[in-house]
Amino acid sequence: MINVPEDQKVWVPWMRRSIQLALLAEGRTSPNPLVGSIVLDSSGRLVGEGYHTGAGNPHAEIEALAQAGDKSVNGTIVVTLEPCCHQGLTPPCTEAIIKSGLKRVVVGMVDPDPRVSGNGISRLKDSGLEVIVGVLRNECELINREFIFRVRHGRPWGILKWAMSLDGRIGLPNGCSKWITDIPARNSVHQIRSKCDAVIVGGGTLRADNPLLTSRGKSNFEPLRVVFTRSLTLPKAAKLWDTKTAKTIIAYGPEGNEAFFSDLPDGPEKLRLTSDDPSELLSSLGKKGCNKILWECGPQLATSAIEANCVQELVVFIAPKLLGGKSAMSPLNNFGFESLDSTYKLQHSILERKGEDLCWKLLF
Amino acid sequence: MINVPEDQKVWVPWMRRSIQLALLAEGRTSPNPLVGSIVLDSSGRLVGEGYHTGAGNPHAEIEALAQAGDKSVNGTIVVTLEPCCHQGLTPPCTEAIIKSGLKRVVVGMVDPDPRVSGNGISRLKDSGLEVIVGVLRNECELINREFIFRVRHGRPWGILKWAMSLDGRIGLPNGCSKWITDIPARNSVHQIRSKCDAVIVGGGTLRADNPLLTSRGKSNFEPLRVVFTRSLTLPKAAKLWDTKTAKTIIAYGPEGNEAFFSDLPDGPEKLRLTSDDPSELLSSLGKKGCNKILWECGPQLATSAIEANCVQELVVFIAPKLLGGKSAMSPLNNFGFESLDSTYKLQHSILERKGEDLCWKLLF
Repeated sequence: MINVPEDQKVWVPWMRRSIQLALLAEGRTSPNPLVGSIVLDSSGRLVGEGYHTGAGNPHAEIEALAQAGDKSVNGTIVVTLEPCCHQGLTPPCTEAIIKSGLKRVVVGMVDPDPRVSGNGISRLKDSGLEVIVGVLRNECELINREFIFRVRHGRPWGILKWAMSLDGRIGLPNGCSKWITDIPARNSVHQIRSKCDAVIVGGGTLRADNPLLTSRGKSNFEPLRVVFTRSLTLPKAAKLWDTKTAKTIIAYGPEGNEAFFSDLPDGPEKLRLTSDDPSELLSSLGKKGCNKILWECGPQLATSAIEANCVQELVVFIAPKLLGGKSAMSPLNNFGFESLDSTYKLQHSILERKGEDLCWKLLF
Repeated sequence: MINVPEDQKVWVPWMRRSIQLALLAEGRTSPNPLVGSIVLDSSGRLVGEGYHTGAGNPHAEIEALAQAGDKSVNGTIVVTLEPCCHQGLTPPCTEAIIKSGLKRVVVGMVDPDPRVSGNGISRLKDSGLEVIVGVLRNECELINREFIFRVRHGRPWGILKWAMSLDGRIGLPNGCSKWITDIPARNSVHQIRSKCDAVIVGGGTLRADNPLLTSRGKSNFEPLRVVFTRSLTLPKAAKLWDTKTAKTIIAYGPEGNEAFFSDLPDGPEKLRLTSDDPSELLSSLGKKGCNKILWECGPQLATSAIEANCVQELVVFIAPKLLGGKSAMSPLNNFGFESLDSTYKLQHSILERKGEDLCWKLLF
């Protein structure tokens, strides 16, 4: 309740509840944001709750208003994100609010989508409703950090994950890397995948590990699985070519030898790019509706992704093991730094224990 | 109070106080253990407290008995470690206890020193005193973990410390390593040094970093500074050669070229060893009275020390920075492991934040 203006304080608990509702659909609304909403009647009693469950489904306000019915007359709607004023997959929420007979709208944050971006609020004010904007704005922005990033930068929020030993190795000198971390940490990776729209590996990881890259049932919505390859020298048999449980995209640069596709099963989608730049891949995934992607790649692609500003968040699992090995792989390759002042410094770190292992999450 | 036998429970709070007293001299009693003691009069009132402040000074029991004076008659003495029964630098404590008129002795743990090792307890029982042994034994053993290790194995408890980036680098490819961690972590290293009897570096670290290796005033008792070198190809000028603030030992193997000593200042002690085996160095340091030493060395010596079982504890500082660099140094060299089942697995981990950095302490 720190720094909340006096006239907004009364709405804080209701905005918190709306945020809770919004989070019920975490990982399932892309390309849309998470939105939650509640409706109070003219006496301030809770008469409706709703949240957005996924693209194409009703918006949070519509769900809450439907529950409230007639009781919304002269009431208040609280919503984490500015109501939309454009016809998207569903009709504009501003019109539904105006028709409902509400007298007040309490908004968490302005919608960064240029089609809305304050226009929804203006439409409501112009119709004579009282509109209060910015209640728990930081919290509302935080739950949609990835959506906001994608709208502003045209590409999804990137998370880079690796698992290493206490001496900074992601494998033994002979390449063996199964398993560095224990079951709780690996479960936690499945959980992270279930909240992402896509998981990206490079050709090297595909060849070495033949990964499945699913959430292992942690979510009904499996992330899109993406192989990002320069040359298309990929194995003919791979778990990712079976697209029954989750979709696969093979993204390749101009040097990719398309003859590879000749005897590949039909399942995987082919995505030809004009460069090997990770940001071109992410722009394509942004256009496909990805708000958040997970890099699960080796040191070479991880290093390029960081250098191309395609990593906003780092998730590092550290196992209490010593592997050793001068020739063993480390998480990252050269950045060319000459002094410690120029290295990447991460911030806002969150530390958790996962069984015997550590999980350290940080932001760039 | 879990698993404390019913008849010992009454002594638990007094043993805890004795442990507190013992810890007041942490890092200053080597080669002796930490010992604390309290005396209760015949009515159970606290009449004396004492702890061992350093080799050659009175033992804890003597200090506590001196405070109690006549009030110890028919009273109880509680002491973390079995009273000694031999003439060392000071007279046997068993005799002082017997003379004091006490009726009961409560002991935390049996002294592993073969000159005592139950003989002190027998002497007291034979003199008609009631002796209760093993109250908070685990806690009493824990505060003297390093002393017990040295008595049992003939060499000090070894701690290996390194500071690395989040991508497992202890320096940039150009060798620059100042500073990876921030001030709170570096202060914490000074604190650790102040609790150790010796700090060991290799010739490589001496040449690259020219370190000072002191506790920076964290203790009045600076650790012994040891350079462990194969060849004696060391710089003529080094901070360690000035032994005004702390002693320095130059330990070298059979290949060491002693011509190096010709124009070195007189301060540093020379220690010729018959091998390059880290365990021979530690045996020598054990004989010099070191209970606990700190390895602050590069990957080569750290790897040999681990392989020679000269590391019992690991202290790893991890900075939230990315350094990168295939050719950058990692904390350890090859162990020759071929599968993840054969790697070193550490346990009993303690995790702390030091400013923005992490400190992870683990046992082998």
